[in-house]
Amino acid sequence: MSKPLILVTNDDGITAPGLRALVRYMNEIGDVVVVAPDSPQSGKGHAITLDIALYSKRMKIDLENGANEEYSCSGTPADCVKMALQELLDRKPDICVSGINHGSNSSINVIYSGTMSAAIEAGIEGVPAIGFSLCDYSWNADFEPAGESIKKIVREALLNGIPPGVVLNVNIPKLEAKDFKGIKICRQARANWKEKFDKRTNPMGKDYYWLTGEFELLDKGEDTDEWALANGYISIVPTQFDLTAHHAIQNINNWNLNA
Amino acid sequence: MSKPLILVTNDDGITAPGLRALVRYMNEIGDVVVVAPDSPQSGKGHAITLDIALYSKRMKIDLENGANEEYSCSGTPADCVKMALQELLDRKPDICVSGINHGSNSSINVIYSGTMSAAIEAGIEGVPAIGFSLCDYSWNADFEPAGESIKKIVREALLNGIPPGVVLNVNIPKLEAKDFKGIKICRQARANWKEKFDKRTNPMGKDYYWLTGEFELLDKGEDTDEWALANGYISIVPTQFDLTAHHAIQNINNWNLNA
Repeated sequence: MSKPLILVTNDDGITAPGLRALVRYMNEIGDVVVVAPDSPQSGKGHAITLDIALYSKRMKIDLENGANEEYSCSGTPADCVKMALQELLDRKPDICVSGINHGSNSSINVIYSGTMSAAIEAGIEGVPAIGFSLCDYSWNADFEPAGESIKKIVREALLNGIPPGVVLNVNIPKLEAKDFKGIKICRQARANWKEKFDKRTNPMGKDYYWLTGEFELLDKGEDTDEWALANGYISIVPTQFDLTAHHAIQNINNWNLNA
Repeated sequence: MSKPLILVTNDDGITAPGLRALVRYMNEIGDVVVVAPDSPQSGKGHAITLDIALYSKRMKIDLENGANEEYSCSGTPADCVKMALQELLDRKPDICVSGINHGSNSSINVIYSGTMSAAIEAGIEGVPAIGFSLCDYSWNADFEPAGESIKKIVREALLNGIPPGVVLNVNIPKLEAKDFKGIKICRQARANWKEKFDKRTNPMGKDYYWLTGEFELLDKGEDTDEWALANGYISIVPTQFDLTAHHAIQNINNWNLNA
């Protein structure tokens, strides 16, 4: 039986330690091809590049533990997936994994996440996909404790299949492997960012702003990803790209729009 | 009674004719403040700006038909909304309207849309929000036929309230006003883009790519936005930012993840 073809991408860029760890884990499961941004793309959401040309470059980053093939791409995470599927790969991959992100993509962060936008792009194009994020923003984060769980999730996804129209958002708490309580299927916690703009004046006398903020959890549910992470579980939120709020259709049908 | 405060933004930039038309219509309903990107931001999805500073500039674009206050912002559409709500406005707006986009944001396009990401950002922050798009990519598109319907939708939204967690995605077919069949509440049609990368070689001998593609409708439903638009209706899709695929939780709970 041939090994599964695994497309690995991310949003922190092709040299990020999180991606290198994911490549090592995926090498144990299948044939790995990396197509990842040539520079960090955090917070890029589901951006695509329409008005500038894209460059792609075949390279070899890690001769010992690297992938079969690796390509950097000058675009966004969603661009990388599009380019991989349409231009660089010989056949459709069996699964696309994105990450491991340096930092959480739980709760409302999924909306801003480049890591998840790559996975969602693969999902839109009919490729089973999973985004992995570790709740540790540090560039030197320790990805090793997450390794066994990540391999288990990918193997189960290949075995059972991910339902069509669904992409998995996996977040991993910053813990020693022995302290993981388990893996929990969750819903996205309701939350937002309480922004604060840090206003400064540049040497030319012009005001500018840095976007900062605090995460504000608005959800006490024990079935959420935030609860799971706070209680030592790895969270999996099945995530969809049909954004229709079906429950709201009836309500809005009562508006007086066609009088 | 005081007039409603209306925040107007978009992704085509503060000078775009679609935004200028929306400002004119909103001036008939409330007090209008514009906070919009200083340059086109199409396809930016829900990008936010984390690693560069943001600039904002008070300006007056259209002395006759402009808004009470107008600000350009150097960031993405989502940045504009964050900056408006946290920094520039004295009070929370009664509604945020984004657009009118030059081009469709129906179906899967909602995922890539800067117009909708601005509306969704407002929704996340608890402000009722609507994105408007005209199915005409031309910079000189005729926005006048859509005017009465846009005002009707905004007035009904102010009167009835938009359900919490829901943002409206309104798309308008390119028709004369007399040819509109009505306004239809729809679900997002299933579709994707069949990408084609146009590969070229630059004068230095290096290959580069343009991302192009064809829209591929994968949905024959007559309750979709695509059906509505093709049949002369203005479509409204209630859109949510809780991306949880609740229907898939049970399925994935059967995987063997905690053995």
